[in-house]
Amino acid sequence: MQEIATYVGDQLKFVLPIEWSVPVNLQESMQYSLMAGGKRLRPLFVIAAAEALGGSRQAALPVACAVEMVHTYSLVHDDLPAMDNDDYRRGKLTNHKVYGEAMAILAGDALLTQAFYTVTEAAKAGVPAEAVLAIISDMSEYAGPRGMVGGQVADMEGEQGMTEIAQLEYIHLHKTADLFMFSLTAGARTAGATEEQLDALRRFGSDLGLAFQIQDDILDVIGDEALLGKKTQSDIKAQKVTYPYFIGLEASQAEVERLTESAKQALAEANLADSQRLAEIADYLMKRDH
Amino acid sequence: MQEIATYVGDQLKFVLPIEWSVPVNLQESMQYSLMAGGKRLRPLFVIAAAEALGGSRQAALPVACAVEMVHTYSLVHDDLPAMDNDDYRRGKLTNHKVYGEAMAILAGDALLTQAFYTVTEAAKAGVPAEAVLAIISDMSEYAGPRGMVGGQVADMEGEQGMTEIAQLEYIHLHKTADLFMFSLTAGARTAGATEEQLDALRRFGSDLGLAFQIQDDILDVIGDEALLGKKTQSDIKAQKVTYPYFIGLEASQAEVERLTESAKQALAEANLADSQRLAEIADYLMKRDH
Repeated sequence: MQEIATYVGDQLKFVLPIEWSVPVNLQESMQYSLMAGGKRLRPLFVIAAAEALGGSRQAALPVACAVEMVHTYSLVHDDLPAMDNDDYRRGKLTNHKVYGEAMAILAGDALLTQAFYTVTEAAKAGVPAEAVLAIISDMSEYAGPRGMVGGQVADMEGEQGMTEIAQLEYIHLHKTADLFMFSLTAGARTAGATEEQLDALRRFGSDLGLAFQIQDDILDVIGDEALLGKKTQSDIKAQKVTYPYFIGLEASQAEVERLTESAKQALAEANLADSQRLAEIADYLMKRDH
Repeated sequence: MQEIATYVGDQLKFVLPIEWSVPVNLQESMQYSLMAGGKRLRPLFVIAAAEALGGSRQAALPVACAVEMVHTYSLVHDDLPAMDNDDYRRGKLTNHKVYGEAMAILAGDALLTQAFYTVTEAAKAGVPAEAVLAIISDMSEYAGPRGMVGGQVADMEGEQGMTEIAQLEYIHLHKTADLFMFSLTAGARTAGATEEQLDALRRFGSDLGLAFQIQDDILDVIGDEALLGKKTQSDIKAQKVTYPYFIGLEASQAEVERLTESAKQALAEANLADSQRLAEIADYLMKRDH
């Protein structure tokens, strides 16, 4: 996992070439958030899924970089004063604290737009044009109003009060699981996956995404601030509704385990050439402490 | 022109289907700005270019809708308090005045993301996958950091003071001309244009975009508020640097004429099956009063 994260991190430097004729501050602002670290989890899914089907890392790389650009733009916009109004992200000042609010909006817009360009480069790496088009269509769907942006809106509206756990599940599924599902299926598409394989990977990503987000809720209650790089108990302070709030800590932990098992079941049904690494990622995410 | 604007306006209703399972306010906010009217100039370029090459309106339609979605998202974000802080657009309240700032940011993000989905639908309308990919790659380039967003950043930074007309030209070229160039070449690509034709249409779009924007500057000085649907003299009040500011009103008008002639020259060199309508659009834009 660390090896792929480092590999993708290195490659991300090249998606915004320094020889571009682009306003310097815009380029810096995009670069600042893109290179701010993080687990590079979504690119890892792309590459692990491609390799699980016997595909090449090279062919999957543009899509791996693109999904990290989409994830990064969503964090930049989420942190804005009009949204979550966060000053820090991963222990560093948020984009708008460094470059100003207008630039942060535009840098997010630019990252999102450029991500689609980056996907098209998969065609140059040998992925058939039809498969690249399917990936682009999926990326719009999973990252757009029916996906991640829809989840973000539901999250924002949920802050006014939530009465049912189904609302929280909707938020987690769309804010987080949708981009997991996209990453897995897009990686698989670069390696010529069948519809059955794509379907199984969607179920794997959906369960895993939900488990990941419940684990996040749990870590906010019992996690170590130094490891997490952010303050814990923030959800409680913000009176944010979470899984532990609805069903308690123990039941939340049991739900993470159940979902992880269900995810691994779906993975087994995907008939991949080698699914071991994806199964290990699922286990790692369940046990993670940051 | 009016016929195509009405046709595209009608079709835009279907790019955000009401049966979507999307948060209601998000859908409404996207719809509000998308259906707020306007000249539908960019979709007109897409369709007129496709038809000038003998292509079909049907095949060009998804791209026509997509470019209007991109244009609309850029207006929604431009109007935000952190950017131009505008309360009205085309005589109606701006998106964030109706739906709030967070929703306006997210509705803009959603429109931009969904625009790429809409382009992929051109493949279902019979455009070859390779041509659709080229259109997507162009859209990212012309709308992204190297294009429209770069122009927006330069515009914002230019408000701190501009000393050279070259800076203003950079802003106009990227904020406006880039999306004109994209629209023309994308429409032409749906109809199987050659590289030579694309190149000539790029020059046509570049000259026309610059002329259009200088005409905008001129109308802000001498235009009719009722026809424009907005207050004139706004640039002067905002101490905004414009073409009339740099070279005076008469020289600006002469520049619009020169650029329009140059655009029509490029058009003649494109060897289109029927270039008359595009030439008429160029003339209309030069003489427009709103």
